[in-house]
Amino acid sequence: MIEKMKTLEIAINEKKKVKLTAFIQDAGGEYRNITKRPAVLVIPGGGYMFCSDREADPVALPYLAAGYDVFVLRYSTGTEGAWPAPLDDYEDAMEYIQQHADEWKVMADRIAVVGFSAGGHLAGAAATIAQHKPAAAILGYAVLNETVDEIAQNAPSIVECVDYDTCPCFVFASRSDSVVPIKNSIEMLGALDKAGVTFESHIYPYGPHGFSTAEMSLQTRDSAFCPRIPNWVEDSIGFLKDVFGEFYVGSLEDKILSTPACKAHATDDGSAWLSLDCTIGRIFGNPVAKEAIVDLVERMQKKIVPFAPGMTFDDMMGVCSKMKLKDLLDERAVEYDEEKVNAVLKEIPNI
Amino acid sequence: MIEKMKTLEIAINEKKKVKLTAFIQDAGGEYRNITKRPAVLVIPGGGYMFCSDREADPVALPYLAAGYDVFVLRYSTGTEGAWPAPLDDYEDAMEYIQQHADEWKVMADRIAVVGFSAGGHLAGAAATIAQHKPAAAILGYAVLNETVDEIAQNAPSIVECVDYDTCPCFVFASRSDSVVPIKNSIEMLGALDKAGVTFESHIYPYGPHGFSTAEMSLQTRDSAFCPRIPNWVEDSIGFLKDVFGEFYVGSLEDKILSTPACKAHATDDGSAWLSLDCTIGRIFGNPVAKEAIVDLVERMQKKIVPFAPGMTFDDMMGVCSKMKLKDLLDERAVEYDEEKVNAVLKEIPNI
Amino acid sequence: MIEKMKTLEIAINEKKKVKLTAFIQDAGGEYRNITKRPAVLVIPGGGYMFCSDREADPVALPYLAAGYDVFVLRYSTGTEGAWPAPLDDYEDAMEYIQQHADEWKVMADRIAVVGFSAGGHLAGAAATIAQHKPAAAILGYAVLNETVDEIAQNAPSIVECVDYDTCPCFVFASRSDSVVPIKNSIEMLGALDKAGVTFESHIYPYGPHGFSTAEMSLQTRDSAFCPRIPNWVEDSIGFLKDVFGEFYVGSLEDKILSTPACKAHATDDGSAWLSLDCTIGRIFGNPVAKEAIVDLVERMQKKIVPFAPGMTFDDMMGVCSKMKLKDLLDERAVEYDEEKVNAVLKEIPNI
Amino acid sequence: MIEKMKTLEIAINEKKKVKLTAFIQDAGGEYRNITKRPAVLVIPGGGYMFCSDREADPVALPYLAAGYDVFVLRYSTGTEGAWPAPLDDYEDAMEYIQQHADEWKVMADRIAVVGFSAGGHLAGAAATIAQHKPAAAILGYAVLNETVDEIAQNAPSIVECVDYDTCPCFVFASRSDSVVPIKNSIEMLGALDKAGVTFESHIYPYGPHGFSTAEMSLQTRDSAFCPRIPNWVEDSIGFLKDVFGEFYVGSLEDKILSTPACKAHATDDGSAWLSLDCTIGRIFGNPVAKEAIVDLVERMQKKIVPFAPGMTFDDMMGVCSKMKLKDLLDERAVEYDEEKVNAVLKEIPNI
Repeated sequence: MIEKMKTLEIAINEKKKVKLTAFIQDAGGEYRNITKRPAVLVIPGGGYMFCSDREADPVALPYLAAGYDVFVLRYSTGTEGAWPAPLDDYEDAMEYIQQHADEWKVMADRIAVVGFSAGGHLAGAAATIAQHKPAAAILGYAVLNETVDEIAQNAPSIVECVDYDTCPCFVFASRSDSVVPIKNSIEMLGALDKAGVTFESHIYPYGPHGFSTAEMSLQTRDSAFCPRIPNWVEDSIGFLKDVFGEFYVGSLEDKILSTPACKAHATDDGSAWLSLDCTIGRIFGNPVAKEAIVDLVERMQKKIVPFAPGMTFDDMMGVCSKMKLKDLLDERAVEYDEEKVNAVLKEIPNI
Repeated sequence: MIEKMKTLEIAINEKKKVKLTAFIQDAGGEYRNITKRPAVLVIPGGGYMFCSDREADPVALPYLAAGYDVFVLRYSTGTEGAWPAPLDDYEDAMEYIQQHADEWKVMADRIAVVGFSAGGHLAGAAATIAQHKPAAAILGYAVLNETVDEIAQNAPSIVECVDYDTCPCFVFASRSDSVVPIKNSIEMLGALDKAGVTFESHIYPYGPHGFSTAEMSLQTRDSAFCPRIPNWVEDSIGFLKDVFGEFYVGSLEDKILSTPACKAHATDDGSAWLSLDCTIGRIFGNPVAKEAIVDLVERMQKKIVPFAPGMTFDDMMGVCSKMKLKDLLDERAVEYDEEKVNAVLKEIPNI
Repeated sequence: MIEKMKTLEIAINEKKKVKLTAFIQDAGGEYRNITKRPAVLVIPGGGYMFCSDREADPVALPYLAAGYDVFVLRYSTGTEGAWPAPLDDYEDAMEYIQQHADEWKVMADRIAVVGFSAGGHLAGAAATIAQHKPAAAILGYAVLNETVDEIAQNAPSIVECVDYDTCPCFVFASRSDSVVPIKNSIEMLGALDKAGVTFESHIYPYGPHGFSTAEMSLQTRDSAFCPRIPNWVEDSIGFLKDVFGEFYVGSLEDKILSTPACKAHATDDGSAWLSLDCTIGRIFGNPVAKEAIVDLVERMQKKIVPFAPGMTFDDMMGVCSKMKLKDLLDERAVEYDEEKVNAVLKEIPNI
Repeated sequence: MIEKMKTLEIAINEKKKVKLTAFIQDAGGEYRNITKRPAVLVIPGGGYMFCSDREADPVALPYLAAGYDVFVLRYSTGTEGAWPAPLDDYEDAMEYIQQHADEWKVMADRIAVVGFSAGGHLAGAAATIAQHKPAAAILGYAVLNETVDEIAQNAPSIVECVDYDTCPCFVFASRSDSVVPIKNSIEMLGALDKAGVTFESHIYPYGPHGFSTAEMSLQTRDSAFCPRIPNWVEDSIGFLKDVFGEFYVGSLEDKILSTPACKAHATDDGSAWLSLDCTIGRIFGNPVAKEAIVDLVERMQKKIVPFAPGMTFDDMMGVCSKMKLKDLLDERAVEYDEEKVNAVLKEIPNI
């Protein structure tokens, strides 16, 4: 029998009033192959002065509806919250969750964070420099660049912390945000791009700071509000499906989630071994690889006609050096055995 | 400060294991003018043999996300559940909710029911013959006609119970439902139309019985599934906004919900007093009314040209007798003082 | 090279001013496997007195955007349009289209009609009694029952013409329509259900007659308008994808559309041969069939536990007689070779 | 009577084969107050080597369906297309359209451009440096930074051309685009932010270059494709409604479009006169303004409590210097006469 959703209140640090609220849905049983669930940790904003309730429990609801377990973290703020206290609270909370992952039937490797404003800064710190890194981060009108200084001394600029190991990020904000300038989000996109990390982003042309899920019941005043803003909620759930996989109902009953449609990085250039998702520059720059796929190269030479007279095939590969090999093969309709070529490449160290 | 959502387990009838789960959100405080909330009572299906968990708590989540309080009723089934036991349970539950409406900050006159399959039958009974009538009913692949006999002896055919006092209904189902024939829903629409009751309906061309919210995590097998089925959830929330009003953020801070965009009846022909939303037949058939709006009639005579030679204005009014007066005036762009005419009509008894 | 969309004006009957406007998109070439296109024929309303321009060319645009060719028929009206003149015009237009199908690269067996109000009556006649039957019909706030008499003497009640050979129908309307009562659409659903024909239906709780595609630029007055009304356009395109198949991009380059997700009938009970999509009553009532699938029946007996003590397996099959065999097997997770059983059944005449 | 949509082929430059296709819808008449229409000019991509048909006429269709007139420009490419030839073609086309604006009933001051890839570069040039500037620009997977050099020598980096007079931009792309790196779009967002220009942006996590409207019939191969990509089309129409205004049906029949919900700049700091949409820094830095709104400042002093002890009101204004005055007043619920204060500010030169 399916049990009801459990709501637990957990004191992470009584003295500092750090609290974790856990909304745990049932798993297994009537839910068959769903024996564990992916999860979301909600991190409310409030300028590191307080934790906004409008960005706390109400944010849990759409993710619960989508089948996730949800946690809400109320971290240290104000005089208790001098950096890195909030990050410490996050680490404590994630450790607590991971220790209880089996009991609660939570997929420990499929926990996303969703943070808003200053909470988006903390979620961004989780995504980049935390010990307990989430598997994805959703960053709403977040403080992400060096202006964090204005609300938290000694707190890091998230933009500067982004590297190849940063988790996939979903970044959204209002272009006309009067409180946290949109520059924060734009610089974050630049950093994620540079580091090769997967991301999705939606910037709406107008709307106030602090709109939370955009439900009317959560607004504090009657602001002009772009009618597309509420889309971020469903879009962020779609993003999690893309990078985590989707609940799976079918014949393979031991599988909980389908294979993710989207990898954590734009290319495999940062992986230890080569693959068809590496760029042409990476593969053709590796003599072992070039030798190993000599048959494929011959097929490519037949299909890929140089743009201009005088160009050689190698010139063409230079022009396409930033394309993923797979994309070029698809675009030019080169026929080849994808599985076999990938198997060959995956034995070649990416050096 | 906004408090967390409360989850309460209430034993409505311990002996018969009738239980009510209450998900109560905070109101007032940071939510300003939202000092009370409308609510939804979820009634799961299960052929009156059991209460399906897949149609219980998970259904609460999208309505919670939309700002409603939600209750889930597990009613008497099997040997304990001979009709009218489930309806008695419903009455007990609604009475309990209404007794606690002030405490829980629930709008007692804005409670909708949502029921599925056999639970849709019970929700339909609530909508038509219950003492504690809901303000709206959402009926999913519901048993609504005389075939209810196959699952519950002596249970009424809801279709035959529909009358002018039935609440607005939202009816959805799959046309290819192999378990509860679509005829149930179609006959319900016919009854609602005949009774003049407001309704909305979505019938999807294919999909299994029992899809609940259509979330992948709630499906029990890999069925062909019309991709528009998941729309019913958001559409039903839109329907509630239309008939209840929407959360209101603005200058009139003492108002919780806006004026409903949609009345509970298709016309005001069933009301005690006339209005512009009565049909022309109703108004022109009332000598007092015809006299009272003589100025308006003169304006109409100038604007409304008969379709054919030889037709008089009265012939035209005969042709249009089923139109609402307001609709005809709008369609023909007759200029008039809506508020004033309505005020006149609203003093004339509708006899 | 892809050529531009062609717009042709075709005089179907010069004397009666019957005109066909053809919007033909290019096919083949850069569109690869799309060497032909499915099509839509738009039939505007106007009470058989005129053809409304607001329900003519503007309706073509979303279907063109979805990749269809579109035709708009301006048929005989007023004194020229005594029934069956409009139906004759329809037949002439469809014959013209089919004669030019190769030239225009139109899939002659994938032409849908979309009609509004009186044009919905004509589209309904096409769907039921025409010589040149469309492959699907979209009926918007259509005149479908015997009240058609008020606008066209001797015109048939479409509801009474529906039979097994009626094409799949998509039926939408506003419940509060003051001009064409919603009863027309509801009776149509009843007739389609009874005849076993596939359909989809959306009835919106409030909104005026004649909203066309619901684009603001097509409205003639400022009416209260349910915000879900505009959904019918995309939903109807989804319906066409379901019953026609969707444009196909992949390795099977000779295929234009994918296999339809939805058959034209709710079950195969009306087909010449049996299949897993026949009802249990149909299959178990056929002695040859029952013999042929004896292995499957044994598997079913193991999996399908009677609801109540004293019930036999045959009693259970009686209870489930209206279910499609495939649905019951799926629901009870009976393992079997779908292709093989279907092959066996498809050799048994359905008598 | 509404006339059919006209399709015109116009030779802008016969020698260079520059062509403009015009899809002109009817206006006025049955469309009442819609006596003119806003318009969209489509600029296909093709690496400045050719004009892709998949990004030409098919893109016109959704904008036509939304009520816009649409033009498609086929500009000089290849050997004929050395920069600035394509920009010259754009100028010629826009001049031609503006000369025919009255005849075609086009709103000359409400023409947007939508361009893809290299066509997105040309649309970006239109938005920034053209003589005939559009009123909005939609830039799809566009070449926008200095890498344009690879496809067009001497063509400008659009990013470097952005200034205060750039029109509002809608920027979309796939993060994993292997052909035009996402950096192009990100740098564009940075430039628009810096210049204070209104924008909206959607970056999808994966999908190929060149997806056009994302209709299946326009794809050339079976690529992994984020299911949110097709949203850009409707979102871009929503953006045009936000910055142009929406078709207006109501009592003010002489108005074609409603007042835009979104101004062309994030603040009015760049305008000739002050307003409530200027930042606090701008207004409080202007001694005349500070004097003129002394009453308002008094009200603010009562409502706006400093964050920390020791902070003065002026310190607070320093912290909030980048907020729009209107946003701060709304956020702190300061009561004031918006119209009156705005009238006062709009007489003060912004120096």
